[in-house]
Amino acid sequence: MFLAKVHVSLKPTVNDPQGLTIAHALGRLDFDSVDSVRAGKYFEVKIDSTDQSAAEADVKSMCEKLLANPVIETFTYELESI
Amino acid sequence: MFLAKVHVSLKPTVNDPQGLTIAHALGRLDFDSVDSVRAGKYFEVKIDSTDQSAAEADVKSMCEKLLANPVIETFTYELESI
Repeated sequence: MFLAKVHVSLKPTVNDPQGLTIAHALGRLDFDSVDSVRAGKYFEVKIDSTDQSAAEADVKSMCEKLLANPVIETFTYELESI
Repeated sequence: MFLAKVHVSLKPTVNDPQGLTIAHALGRLDFDSVDSVRAGKYFEVKIDSTDQSAAEADVKSMCEKLLANPVIETFTYELESI
């Protein structure tokens, strides 16, 4: 069994209204040190497999097909055996 | 300047309808090795400060007050100097 930890973030050139909204909200809570906020998604995917390279290929394909929108998002992942 | 990488995840005992939906969708895309999916949030917060311990305290407080819902979510964060 493997655990894939997937991070999906907006590309740097893409506007992040959610991040902006959070940054403003933090400012209103007197967190004056906040410079900027980027919001993204985090997935933990358990993969029932014994073949690490097959699991790795699966995770990459899952990100490309479903977890991330390749037009506006980038993804990174780590795979660990559990 | 510091960069806080914040992970917000549902507590293990809390149902994760988003994760279930994603797991089913992955199954329909023939990713048969998927055992389960947990969906969460990921934030990158830039903090304009030179005091690491003050920045650390700020991040913890931001999570407790806004970024995470303490009733159903847990949070972890890493702080790095940039």
